[in-house]
Amino acid sequence: MMPTTSAAPSSSPAAPIRETVRVELGDRSYDILIGTGLLDDPAAWAGLPKAQTAMIVTNTTVGPLYAARLQAALVPHYARVLTVELPDGEAFKDAATLERIYAALLGATCDRKTVLFALGGGVVGDMTGFAAACYMRGVPFVQVPTTLLSQVDSSVGGKTAINHPLGKNMIGAFYQPVRVICDLDTLDTLPERELSAGLAEVIKYGPIADADFLAWIEANIEPLRARDKTALAQAVKRSCQIKAQVVGCDERESGLRAILNFGHTFGHAIEAGLGYGEWLHGEAVGCGMVMAADLSARLGLMPAEFVARVRGLCERAGLPVVGPALGAERYLQLMQIDKKSEGGEIRFVVIDRLGSARMQGAPEAMVREVLAAHCAA
Amino acid sequence: MMPTTSAAPSSSPAAPIRETVRVELGDRSYDILIGTGLLDDPAAWAGLPKAQTAMIVTNTTVGPLYAARLQAALVPHYARVLTVELPDGEAFKDAATLERIYAALLGATCDRKTVLFALGGGVVGDMTGFAAACYMRGVPFVQVPTTLLSQVDSSVGGKTAINHPLGKNMIGAFYQPVRVICDLDTLDTLPERELSAGLAEVIKYGPIADADFLAWIEANIEPLRARDKTALAQAVKRSCQIKAQVVGCDERESGLRAILNFGHTFGHAIEAGLGYGEWLHGEAVGCGMVMAADLSARLGLMPAEFVARVRGLCERAGLPVVGPALGAERYLQLMQIDKKSEGGEIRFVVIDRLGSARMQGAPEAMVREVLAAHCAA
Repeated sequence: MMPTTSAAPSSSPAAPIRETVRVELGDRSYDILIGTGLLDDPAAWAGLPKAQTAMIVTNTTVGPLYAARLQAALVPHYARVLTVELPDGEAFKDAATLERIYAALLGATCDRKTVLFALGGGVVGDMTGFAAACYMRGVPFVQVPTTLLSQVDSSVGGKTAINHPLGKNMIGAFYQPVRVICDLDTLDTLPERELSAGLAEVIKYGPIADADFLAWIEANIEPLRARDKTALAQAVKRSCQIKAQVVGCDERESGLRAILNFGHTFGHAIEAGLGYGEWLHGEAVGCGMVMAADLSARLGLMPAEFVARVRGLCERAGLPVVGPALGAERYLQLMQIDKKSEGGEIRFVVIDRLGSARMQGAPEAMVREVLAAHCAA
Repeated sequence: MMPTTSAAPSSSPAAPIRETVRVELGDRSYDILIGTGLLDDPAAWAGLPKAQTAMIVTNTTVGPLYAARLQAALVPHYARVLTVELPDGEAFKDAATLERIYAALLGATCDRKTVLFALGGGVVGDMTGFAAACYMRGVPFVQVPTTLLSQVDSSVGGKTAINHPLGKNMIGAFYQPVRVICDLDTLDTLPERELSAGLAEVIKYGPIADADFLAWIEANIEPLRARDKTALAQAVKRSCQIKAQVVGCDERESGLRAILNFGHTFGHAIEAGLGYGEWLHGEAVGCGMVMAADLSARLGLMPAEFVARVRGLCERAGLPVVGPALGAERYLQLMQIDKKSEGGEIRFVVIDRLGSARMQGAPEAMVREVLAAHCAA
C-alpha cells in the first residue's frame, strides 16, 4: 500500500503510469488512455480528428480546476478552443442544459467538424456525448473523465443521455467517443463521497464478470480509498477491459450488455424516488447491488454469504447499504417505468455464479421481501 | 396521360400498383413500398418489429384524414395503438414539439420496443425519426409519408432533425426506419402547392444523377400535376432509387451524399431568411436549384440553356423561380451558417454535366451575381 496525497497540480512525482485499453467496435473502435499526468502529456492529445474549432464542455466545479490545462493541450491542434461551463450536478442533466451546449456551438458558428471535449464526470460526459451525437447529426467527441465513476463506467460504451422529468436517461443515443483520456491525477481533487461512488461501479465488475477481480478489490480497498495511483490504474484498467469486452459483444444493449446494470434497477428507483442528485448514482448502485445480491440469493442462485460479502465490501468502500424509506409501492412503480421493464415485467440482473450474471424476472412478493430487508422503515 | 382525381378514401379503383425499392445499408437495410391502397393492405403491415405498443405520430391535418385507417392496420399486430397529434407546420419542428412526443411515450409507459409510426409529411417524419432515435436511446420506427416531398426525399436516407432558433435541421441524427410505406392515394388530399413543392425534389434527381429521368419528368409534368398514379409511382420509385443508391454509398454524408443538396444552400437561406414555413421547403429548393444551375453556368460547367431548362421545368411544376428580396448580405450570412459551410468557406452543389454533380466553392462576387439575377429587388 502506497498512499499518494494530492500531487502538484501540473505534474506527477513518481514515474508516469501509462495503460491503454482498446474498445473494439469496428469502425467505431477507440482507445482509453489511463495514466498520470496525461493532461500535460502532448502524446495523449495527438492524432485526434482535425478541425478549426474544439469546444470544451465542463462544469463550474471541474472547469476552474482543469479547463486551462486542457485548453493548453488543445491549442496546438485547433485554431479556436472554446469552453462552455455548465452548472454542476445530476439535477442539471436535462434538456435545458443540453440547449446551452447547442446555443454555444451555434452562437460560435461551429461547423460539423468541431470536436467536443467532455471534461468532468458522468453528467458532463453524458450530456456532451449526446450533444455531439445530435449537433448537426453528429460531431466527434473526446471523453476526459475526472471522476472515478466516469472513468470506469460512463466513459466506456457510448451510452449518452439526458434525464426527463418522467424518467432517468430516457432521452439519449448510443454514440462512441473517438478517444477517452483518464488522467488519474484528476482524482486527487475528487470529494471522498464521489470516490466511494466510483468504487461501487468498480466493485460491480467483480460479481458480474471476474471473481478474481472481486478478491483483488477486497484486498486493495484501502489503497484505492487512499488514491494510490498504482491501485487506481489497475482498478480503472480492469473495469474498462471488462466493460469494453461486454460492449464489444453488444454495443446497443440487446442482451449481454444488460448485465452491466447489476444493481441499477433498484438503484435507479432510489435515485428517482429521492429526486436526482440526493444520492449519487454510485451510491444508489452500491445499495442496489446489495439488494440485487439478496435477490440472487432468494432465487436460490447464490449462497447467503454472497450477500454479506457484497454488503461488507460496499461498507468498506464507504457506501450506504440501506435504501431510503420510499415504501415498496413506490419502488415497484419506479422500477416498472425503468427502461429494463419490457412488456410490463420487471427484470433484474442477478448473479448466477461468482463472475457470471444474467437477466431474470422475479416474483413480486420476493422483490417486496428484498425491499423490506434492505430499506429503512 | 391518365389523370386520376380523388378516389374513394379507402380503396383505389384501378388495379393496385406495387413497387418496392430496397435501401441497402447492411444491418440497417430496409424496403420502401410504393403503391395504391397500401393503408388498407394487410401485406404492407406484416413482419414489422413486434412490441406491446405502437405509437402513431401525426399532425392535426393528416391525423383526421388517415390515422383511423393506420390504426386499423396496426391493431392486429400491437396490443396498444396510441396516437399523438402534433401541430402542423415547419414552425413546430422544434424542441418543444419533440418534447410532446417524449411526454406521450413516457406518459403511456412505453418501453424500448415500442414502434413509432410517422404519419404525415417531412416535418412529422423528421421529428418522429429523431424521437425514435433518442427515446430510450433508440426504438424502431416506420415512415408513412403522405406528401410527395416526404415520399421522395425525407423518407429515404435516415436524416432526422429538428430546427433550432439559430439554424434549420441543426439538431438531429442519422437513424434509419425499418420500413417506408408510400401510399400514393394519400397524395389525393395534398394541396396543389405542396404537390409542386414535392415535384421540386423529384426534378432535382434529374440534373444530379439521371439525364433521362430529367427528360421523362419534362414529358410527364402534366400527368404528375394531375396526380396520375402510374406517373407518380414512376416518379417516386426512380427518385427513391437514386437517393437510395447515393445514401447506400455514403450513409453519413461525408462526401457523395452532399449532391442531394443541389439547390439547398440557396434554398435554406430563403427558408431561414423569410422564417421557416413562409415558403415550403420544396419551393425554396426549386428556386434554389435555378440559382445553383446559374452558378454552374457562371462557373463554366454548364451552358446557359441548362439554366433556362431548370427554370422552365420548375415553372411548369408550379414553383416560384424568383427568390425573395432578402438582400445579398443576408443571403451570404445565412449560407455561411448553413451546415455545408466548413471552415468558413461556402460550398455549393453544382452540376458539371447533365446527370452529374459535385461540391465546389465559388467566388463571393459570382454568388452575388447569381443572387442579383434571381432575386426580387
